[in-house]
Amino acid sequence: MTETARIVEIRELSVPLKGQVANAVVNFAEHDVSLVAVMSNVMRNGKPVVGLGFNSIGRFAQGGLLNRRFIPRVLAAMPDSLGGGPNGGPDPAKVRAVAMRNEKPGGHGDRAAAVAALELAVWDLAAKLGDEPAWVTMARAYGTTPHRDGSPVYAAGGYYYDGMSKGSLAEELAGYLDQGFTSVKMKIGGASLAEDTARIEEAIGMLGGADRVAVDANGRFDRAEALSWGRHLDGYGLRWLEEMGDPLDYGVHAALVAEIDTAIATGENLFSRQDVRNLLAFGAPRPGKDIFQMDAGLSYGLGEYAGMIADLESAGHRREQVMPHGGHLINLHIVTALGLGGCEAYPKVFVPFGGYAPQCRLQDGRISPSDAPGFGLEQKVDLQPEIERILA
Amino acid sequence: MTETARIVEIRELSVPLKGQVANAVVNFAEHDVSLVAVMSNVMRNGKPVVGLGFNSIGRFAQGGLLNRRFIPRVLAAMPDSLGGGPNGGPDPAKVRAVAMRNEKPGGHGDRAAAVAALELAVWDLAAKLGDEPAWVTMARAYGTTPHRDGSPVYAAGGYYYDGMSKGSLAEELAGYLDQGFTSVKMKIGGASLAEDTARIEEAIGMLGGADRVAVDANGRFDRAEALSWGRHLDGYGLRWLEEMGDPLDYGVHAALVAEIDTAIATGENLFSRQDVRNLLAFGAPRPGKDIFQMDAGLSYGLGEYAGMIADLESAGHRREQVMPHGGHLINLHIVTALGLGGCEAYPKVFVPFGGYAPQCRLQDGRISPSDAPGFGLEQKVDLQPEIERILA
Repeated sequence: MTETARIVEIRELSVPLKGQVANAVVNFAEHDVSLVAVMSNVMRNGKPVVGLGFNSIGRFAQGGLLNRRFIPRVLAAMPDSLGGGPNGGPDPAKVRAVAMRNEKPGGHGDRAAAVAALELAVWDLAAKLGDEPAWVTMARAYGTTPHRDGSPVYAAGGYYYDGMSKGSLAEELAGYLDQGFTSVKMKIGGASLAEDTARIEEAIGMLGGADRVAVDANGRFDRAEALSWGRHLDGYGLRWLEEMGDPLDYGVHAALVAEIDTAIATGENLFSRQDVRNLLAFGAPRPGKDIFQMDAGLSYGLGEYAGMIADLESAGHRREQVMPHGGHLINLHIVTALGLGGCEAYPKVFVPFGGYAPQCRLQDGRISPSDAPGFGLEQKVDLQPEIERILA
Repeated sequence: MTETARIVEIRELSVPLKGQVANAVVNFAEHDVSLVAVMSNVMRNGKPVVGLGFNSIGRFAQGGLLNRRFIPRVLAAMPDSLGGGPNGGPDPAKVRAVAMRNEKPGGHGDRAAAVAALELAVWDLAAKLGDEPAWVTMARAYGTTPHRDGSPVYAAGGYYYDGMSKGSLAEELAGYLDQGFTSVKMKIGGASLAEDTARIEEAIGMLGGADRVAVDANGRFDRAEALSWGRHLDGYGLRWLEEMGDPLDYGVHAALVAEIDTAIATGENLFSRQDVRNLLAFGAPRPGKDIFQMDAGLSYGLGEYAGMIADLESAGHRREQVMPHGGHLINLHIVTALGLGGCEAYPKVFVPFGGYAPQCRLQDGRISPSDAPGFGLEQKVDLQPEIERILA
């Protein structure tokens, strides 16, 4: 099944997220995502084999950076110099290295998401060349033990509702239970501590246990607020407290874990191994307890992400503590391949990139990818028009 | 002289750097810079008063981010909501806040440079509305004591020459001395320790003292190399050792200052206050000794930069330790306005943004801006064609 595949063209399409969502800090109505197509010279059924990737969700499309810096550098490289990857395709690590030529150290922001979309599309291409799901390709490449019986998944949401909103928190959570989810994550920090406490108690009641409810402040609190909210919430035995302070404030992380017994979760806004190493060195995360939420799609792709996990394990942490930000098919394959702690799902929001395909199986709080080759993005109904556009 | 000025249009022009330069890590041949023009409704001599800014040098133009995210948000804001700035113009802090609406915390990379170009153009506009040099406007806004008799300046360069190159290190340094510079910074880490040692000794001899020679590794070394080169170089009494490790590796900074008596310089790749706070908390810089090189043009502009300096002073450091990366007119005005330790100059490279205008006075190792309004970018001959293009 191995043919020598070369990259012949790379396209980017900036796709707006549909539907209005807000967290404590950000309104996602104007957010968009870069869909990237890596076209190969290998033809199957009269069509080129194409790798598709995107830069996760929650930040922005990166057409400017991709079209001016990263795509031209890859296309300028000799195709032979990019070979040697899985299933006879281009090597994701080499593609990333060429894309990053002449980039300075530091400054891990938009650039990390742009390169991630490109690198992940190369993984999709590799898996399709082997006619296998991406998690199979990735697990083989990294020598990991994949989740063959599904990965833990929780429903993220838990939005704010007021008199003007349709629905309520209870309705929202009931919907998740109906769909097969057994644990949830809800927003905090967008209301007073008293109001949020009432919401949290309602959620605990509905889910049947505080250990099934995580809360997410989206980095809203300053140091004093993070500590006072943390102390107040610590007694509930919640699953975790997420992004209680600025994501780069390792000092506040250390202060939280020193005082608070509940697991502390962070990492979705750490976009490089060096940032993660700083969290490990200065944030004092607790092995076996605290949660790491880095997202390959915002962090230069799978290569950097696997390096982050190696750094975590070297520091005594376990892969079960790793639950990436970004509830979508790419991260489902990564969680499955690397045997991580689980993934999140944002039912009905972040359309068309968020969520899973109908062929994925969700049961008893676990989810499995389908047998589609690559990430199976083609099975995601709401993404099909965008895929047709980028391939047209 | 105060009229109520409103922003009516914002333009961006991506300008390639001319001339080929390489440091230990990066070849600058493909680098470019975003020139930003903030056009106001105020007419003088039949032309609108226009603020000009750019995102420093050494990284990349940010047309994609500016045109898709930051400029549209500013233009969508009610003009009255942006007022109250110096000289009756828009407030740089309000412009920045509107530009950053819906941006998540963390991820301080390309975004920080894009916003900086915009914010600095608003400062140029403010100064021009008051018909005064930008340093006057800035010093008044921040209540600082400016350098009225020139700011210390050193020549940065010290490139590698081989048999094929025209010139030599000695010729290059002799040229700086002729121009009125009394101290220099040179590249290290692009050759063996033995070769670099010979180059450093040559420079010390020409400048007449090791305290007139700083060295820059551009983040090239890993931790072990940084420490072994640092130990070797410590005996010379050089002015400083710059970017010896990864710019975000606060641990290596702490290890260097624990062992090495020579001043350690870093910061040009720290793009936010939170990153600087981490350097202060975990990098153990020495008050009165180590050097901070953050660059407003890569770091959201003057507002964030002034905040970084406030954080440094709160930690016991002095403004004399602050010498920004980026040898150009904008940083000359900032160094002058805030009374900082000095600025760098890269004679003949990073054209057309690097360097100063002929009307600036360079004498005995100090440099002064001219009396031109704003940053005086219009006086920079090699930048005039680009300014004409963006205003056309």
